[in-house]
Amino acid sequence: LACSAIDSVDGQKCIVCSQLFISLSAGLSAAKLLKANGLSPVVLEARDRVGGRTFTVRNRETKWVDLGGAYIGPTQNRILRLASEYDVKTYKVNEQESLVHYVNGKSYPFKGSFPPMWNPIVLLDFNNLWRTMDEMGKEIPREAPWRAPHAEEWDKMTMQQLFEKICWTSTVRHFATLFVNVNVTSEPHEVSALWFLWYVKQCGGTMRIFSTSNGGQERKFVGGSSQISECMAKELGDQVKLQSPVYRIDQSGDMVVVETLDKQIYTAKYVIVATPPGLNLKMHFNPELPPLRNQLISRVPMGSVIKCMVYYKENFWRKKGYCGSMVIEEEGAPISLTLDDTKPDGTVPAIMGFILARKCRKLSGLSKEERLKRICEIYSRVLGSEEALHPVHYEEKNWCEEEYSGGCYTAYFPPGILTQYGKVLREPVGRLYFAGTETATEWSGYMEGAVQAGERAAREVMCALGKIHQSQIWQTEPECVEVPALPFVTTFWERNMPSVGGFLKFMGVSAFLSVATAASLMAYKKGLLPRS
Amino acid sequence: LACSAIDSVDGQKCIVCSQLFISLSAGLSAAKLLKANGLSPVVLEARDRVGGRTFTVRNRETKWVDLGGAYIGPTQNRILRLASEYDVKTYKVNEQESLVHYVNGKSYPFKGSFPPMWNPIVLLDFNNLWRTMDEMGKEIPREAPWRAPHAEEWDKMTMQQLFEKICWTSTVRHFATLFVNVNVTSEPHEVSALWFLWYVKQCGGTMRIFSTSNGGQERKFVGGSSQISECMAKELGDQVKLQSPVYRIDQSGDMVVVETLDKQIYTAKYVIVATPPGLNLKMHFNPELPPLRNQLISRVPMGSVIKCMVYYKENFWRKKGYCGSMVIEEEGAPISLTLDDTKPDGTVPAIMGFILARKCRKLSGLSKEERLKRICEIYSRVLGSEEALHPVHYEEKNWCEEEYSGGCYTAYFPPGILTQYGKVLREPVGRLYFAGTETATEWSGYMEGAVQAGERAAREVMCALGKIHQSQIWQTEPECVEVPALPFVTTFWERNMPSVGGFLKFMGVSAFLSVATAASLMAYKKGLLPRS
Repeated sequence: LACSAIDSVDGQKCIVCSQLFISLSAGLSAAKLLKANGLSPVVLEARDRVGGRTFTVRNRETKWVDLGGAYIGPTQNRILRLASEYDVKTYKVNEQESLVHYVNGKSYPFKGSFPPMWNPIVLLDFNNLWRTMDEMGKEIPREAPWRAPHAEEWDKMTMQQLFEKICWTSTVRHFATLFVNVNVTSEPHEVSALWFLWYVKQCGGTMRIFSTSNGGQERKFVGGSSQISECMAKELGDQVKLQSPVYRIDQSGDMVVVETLDKQIYTAKYVIVATPPGLNLKMHFNPELPPLRNQLISRVPMGSVIKCMVYYKENFWRKKGYCGSMVIEEEGAPISLTLDDTKPDGTVPAIMGFILARKCRKLSGLSKEERLKRICEIYSRVLGSEEALHPVHYEEKNWCEEEYSGGCYTAYFPPGILTQYGKVLREPVGRLYFAGTETATEWSGYMEGAVQAGERAAREVMCALGKIHQSQIWQTEPECVEVPALPFVTTFWERNMPSVGGFLKFMGVSAFLSVATAASLMAYKKGLLPRS
Repeated sequence: LACSAIDSVDGQKCIVCSQLFISLSAGLSAAKLLKANGLSPVVLEARDRVGGRTFTVRNRETKWVDLGGAYIGPTQNRILRLASEYDVKTYKVNEQESLVHYVNGKSYPFKGSFPPMWNPIVLLDFNNLWRTMDEMGKEIPREAPWRAPHAEEWDKMTMQQLFEKICWTSTVRHFATLFVNVNVTSEPHEVSALWFLWYVKQCGGTMRIFSTSNGGQERKFVGGSSQISECMAKELGDQVKLQSPVYRIDQSGDMVVVETLDKQIYTAKYVIVATPPGLNLKMHFNPELPPLRNQLISRVPMGSVIKCMVYYKENFWRKKGYCGSMVIEEEGAPISLTLDDTKPDGTVPAIMGFILARKCRKLSGLSKEERLKRICEIYSRVLGSEEALHPVHYEEKNWCEEEYSGGCYTAYFPPGILTQYGKVLREPVGRLYFAGTETATEWSGYMEGAVQAGERAAREVMCALGKIHQSQIWQTEPECVEVPALPFVTTFWERNMPSVGGFLKFMGVSAFLSVATAASLMAYKKGLLPRS
């Protein structure tokens, strides 16, 4: 058994145990910052590659393809800073032509973030849904959602229950379900309302999280998102150990002792665990974790998604006036959301689609060929094009089968967990510190959150080493100049339109008043009221 | 690194990997049955003791005390069969005197399984609750709850949602919450309604699961419940390896290779994993688990409970006419349910109490002394006795801190999980078979379920070896003669009393009919109706 202890310049050792990586590696960004501050971190990575939940595959057919986390957008300034440092360029996801909303078996082209609703009652209901979710979000502190004024009440509810309270029409309830499916790869009845409202809020609200232009899906990295991790790993050199899943962490002695499946033993003064919280369970701890953390880690499952890339000879949808974004509401369709995935130079025409939550579980058992067939069928129907039936290539990644992710994109909180266990999410345990996008407070669940978390954990360790003051642990990030965030302007009508309930009440009261007025007028005219 | 391969008489090897034991060790009962059939199982146990979620401590102050699973009752015939084989006797938990129901700050002595309700509306509501839960349970197949006619609908609901539908009065809703807390150490808003209804059903219904006499808490083992595991372990001799947590299972070759933290390598033809499903995560698998199993194991958290034993000089409660059973409804009280824990010969007077679910999380941070103080205070108030404030000894066990249990008594299913993942709960993966009380279909969550699951998994392995036919895997168990199950007889009134809703409808219709009749009579008398 080899024992490799890496001494930093000041004799202090530090392992960043980032096995089972978080999307774009909170672990690597932690290690990068530690190294920049004169420490000598070691990164232990479970897989034979870095990048975790980002996964760029290169091959002849695709040039490169992101089968994991890929999208970035305005307000995600930390990941954009790293990209710019490594000279990784971004490009805008194509949204030139029309998006399509497919519902009740018909395609409706549209422009903007959300499909428009034409029925006036549905419109009131739809507007009220987003407004209510954003207003509830404003009450939730991003760094401590369990301290929201209504935290207990909202945490006891699932999002499905909340939708039942807010939504009057089934059209809007169905779209709300898709909104949860797309954003957190789980079902409204599976997730705590408090948690989901927090999640949307810490991404900047319903518009920011769901939009392509000016939102979370605005851009991709030219050459793939894993490049950022690969560049950081290159910088760290042989201090990044691949194929080194950690199975034991012992902090019963003076140093923390970490053992990996390949029988290596590492010792360090501090350890940063940068896995999704649930994957802390892959490690055997001595001493045992405190009771709340021991239970938290079995209460935060990862979502369910298969990312599917269908390649075509030609970019036929653009010719038909479609940009490639489809919002598909149809129980039998495998895919709920698509985006154009053609390369920025117009080559390698492709459509990216997500198989989400219940559909992911249902279709996991099929063969790859069968999934492709069903995907092409729905694309053909939505785009009204026979060409969609003739793909030239297919790539897919079912993240549910990944032992060292557990699922994608991120962990969700079932009802009751956030208020009871949330506060220990990033609370250090002895000399263990916790990173991973799940511990972030801005864009948690995204690459941006992974960087925030990794850098924060690195600063916690530096603070413990006396290198920085406690007040320096949390740092804000200046805005990326090339990717500015535009505010989402709501119109007077969006702010003031009533909900369906409010409208009906108004109509009821108006009707009553009109009838009453008419009746008194009539009575007056007919001389039934005394004229004083 | 030692490599110990154990050949059975016919050259076939079999490891029962029962690390991270299930209450009373599904693993040991599997191994016992395999050995009895001429195989040579090896049991790998994570802890330095056998018994898992059963835990008998022996000391001067208590003689012996069960700090884990302890209670058994009628219809739990498998565990009773094992006990009888090892000559471990049972005794009845004291229920001679009155039980107490403490609610709204007052104590109400009562006899029977459930506290009586005096307000007639509450009585209707209370009766309707149990009747409805039992009737819904009848629709749920114990071996496949996901195939119940309303499986999807009920699985999308939490028990809290179901209670909001069923219960009209807050009195009954509060008691229903306690019922969930006591039976599954979790909160109504945390658990799927389908799962909880299944759980109660497979224990024999609301009366069987909650009752002391004629129910799940009727008896305890003289000398403690761990004896059964200890006797099985003794029988298996040095084939039981303690302090051997499994961290790796490799079935990529001809044989399954299992590695333990103490650096031993075991090879076998088949492996039975007898941990709670969530603790499968402690192992690194090669090849990876299939997608549904990989996700299931992070979706089934263990409940939260501290088992607290307070010892007194004298059995003062019996003198006051109380048997020691208390059902305590008071948010500020740590304990929700107690039972007398005095030894069968009347020595070592003690009261057993559970700190459950939300209260367990809240009180985990206190010192042992502070918990004891608060417990004695509530006992003193409920029993109306100053003597309760002067314990002579205290024992407690917080199961949330156990790395190799994750919590107690058992795993729960949050909303949406049972229908999506339930069917892979005991589906073999290559040469891995799954035991553990969570995989049982009768008294799952109990010692009985552990034995059923262990023996079933052992027979699955024997079937794979061609030693028995597939039809012999599942076996029924004859009734234990000494512990017969009495039927629960419901009265005509219990079966036919209306719900509060039904009652109000009836009253409304009757009132309308009475008024209508009276009015027509009056009209008739006054000559306003034409007399034909």
